Amino acid sequence: MPNPKIPNIKELTITIQKLEEKIIFAILQRAQYLQNLEIYLPEKSGFLNKKKESFLEIRLKMQEEVDARCGRFLIPTEQPFCQNLPKAERNLAINFPNFPVKNFQKINFTSEILKNYLKFLPKLYLAGTDNHFGSSVEFDVASLRAISERIHFAAFFIAESKFQYQPEEYKKLILEKDEKKIEKKLTRNHIEKEIFTRILEKTNFYQQFSPLRIKVDPKILAEFFKKVVIAISKKAEVQYFLHRKF
Amino acid sequence: MPNPKIPNIKELTITIQKLEEKIIFAILQRAQYLQNLEIYLPEKSGFLNKKKESFLEIRLKMQEEVDARCGRFLIPTEQPFCQNLPKAERNLAINFPNFPVKNFQKINFTSEILKNYLKFLPKLYLAGTDNHFGSSVEFDVASLRAISERIHFAAFFIAESKFQYQPEEYKKLILEKDEKKIEKKLTRNHIEKEIFTRILEKTNFYQQFSPLRIKVDPKILAEFFKKVVIAISKKAEVQYFLHRKF
Repeated sequence: MPNPKIPNIKELTITIQKLEEKIIFAILQRAQYLQNLEIYLPEKSGFLNKKKESFLEIRLKMQEEVDARCGRFLIPTEQPFCQNLPKAERNLAINFPNFPVKNFQKINFTSEILKNYLKFLPKLYLAGTDNHFGSSVEFDVASLRAISERIHFAAFFIAESKFQYQPEEYKKLILEKDEKKIEKKLTRNHIEKEIFTRILEKTNFYQQFSPLRIKVDPKILAEFFKKVVIAISKKAEVQYFLHRKF
Repeated sequence: MPNPKIPNIKELTITIQKLEEKIIFAILQRAQYLQNLEIYLPEKSGFLNKKKESFLEIRLKMQEEVDARCGRFLIPTEQPFCQNLPKAERNLAINFPNFPVKNFQKINFTSEILKNYLKFLPKLYLAGTDNHFGSSVEFDVASLRAISERIHFAAFFIAESKFQYQPEEYKKLILEKDEKKIEKKLTRNHIEKEIFTRILEKTNFYQQFSPLRIKVDPKILAEFFKKVVIAISKKAEVQYFLHRKF
């Protein structure tokens, strides 16, 4: 099976950094509103015809229905949080590398992303209720989608680039189905430290200009990247390897 | 008729600056993709069942259908770009000032916003096609909504605060229905200059950190604020005054 053509390391690095800035921008904007915990509770959405779900669940589903109709989830690195989405109504213009994976839908870590985002939320945003439920939930959805985009981009593109750099070594571990060894092999401690420092510096920098804005603690956001974004990216890369044909 | 209770000048200034940062963030993110002019052309959307509209028109309508169902357009400062939207399915938690205007839907400058955004687009974003149509159109929608939010916020809150500061003078001009005199009265040249300088500095600042990102010319964005955001805000404020009861 021929290797798919993917961008070089420099281009991948640029994309990863842009994707992490998308996460930072979304989270810094969500932070302008209080936690508004009601939006995460069932039966509190204010919807007259949807009693069971939370406002976040309802808004996420509505947003992904739009995205699905526009064809977003035809792209392997775009994994949905919701199920039973409508079919794409649109032909995509984009040319995507032909990843040697049968069911790319199986490399989907959205439920883990959602669980961990909700866990970090009280540390990222100020406690209390300001009644800006619509705006809060809108930036929650933007944050979740950006986090998912970063993680699933890594799962396919970064993992594939590692495979192509050392195909024989990865083939051996894949055949052994040894998840721990694969994770150890793909881990780059110095890069993880670089990312941690970069998030710290970026979050600090982007919040310097305007004294009016509510601040996110740069240490908490860097910790979120370490414990959630990077940790799940690595799990997702392992899954990519386990599904990769050769 | 009693005056509606609105935030004080300091709080209004904070909100206006946050809204302008929402516009800047959206535009800087849109700028990471090329112009992709196909998304603004009819019959080029790629949708199998929607031949006439452009991709931007289709995505904007889909997004506003979601927003309408969530109740966004029950708020006077949130004006839709599209018509024939579904009804709100949700009770809003937010308490909004009771503006003394009968049909707040009449103070809607979205078609002028759209026209002017499309006019500035070739100056804001790099020419060419990168096939990232979905992401481009997504940030176009985010930019348009942020611009509209800033303009209609000014139309209601800033205009009302000016009225309450000098009610007798505005009443006289409103009774005379003299749009030119109202516009002259509400214009604050030194504040417009301050905004221009602030946008220049902010756009410059937010693009300093990452050498990887595609840059927007801060002068063009400041000019966009002057010629579009501020200019339409003032027209919208005039309309507010003409519709205001007392």
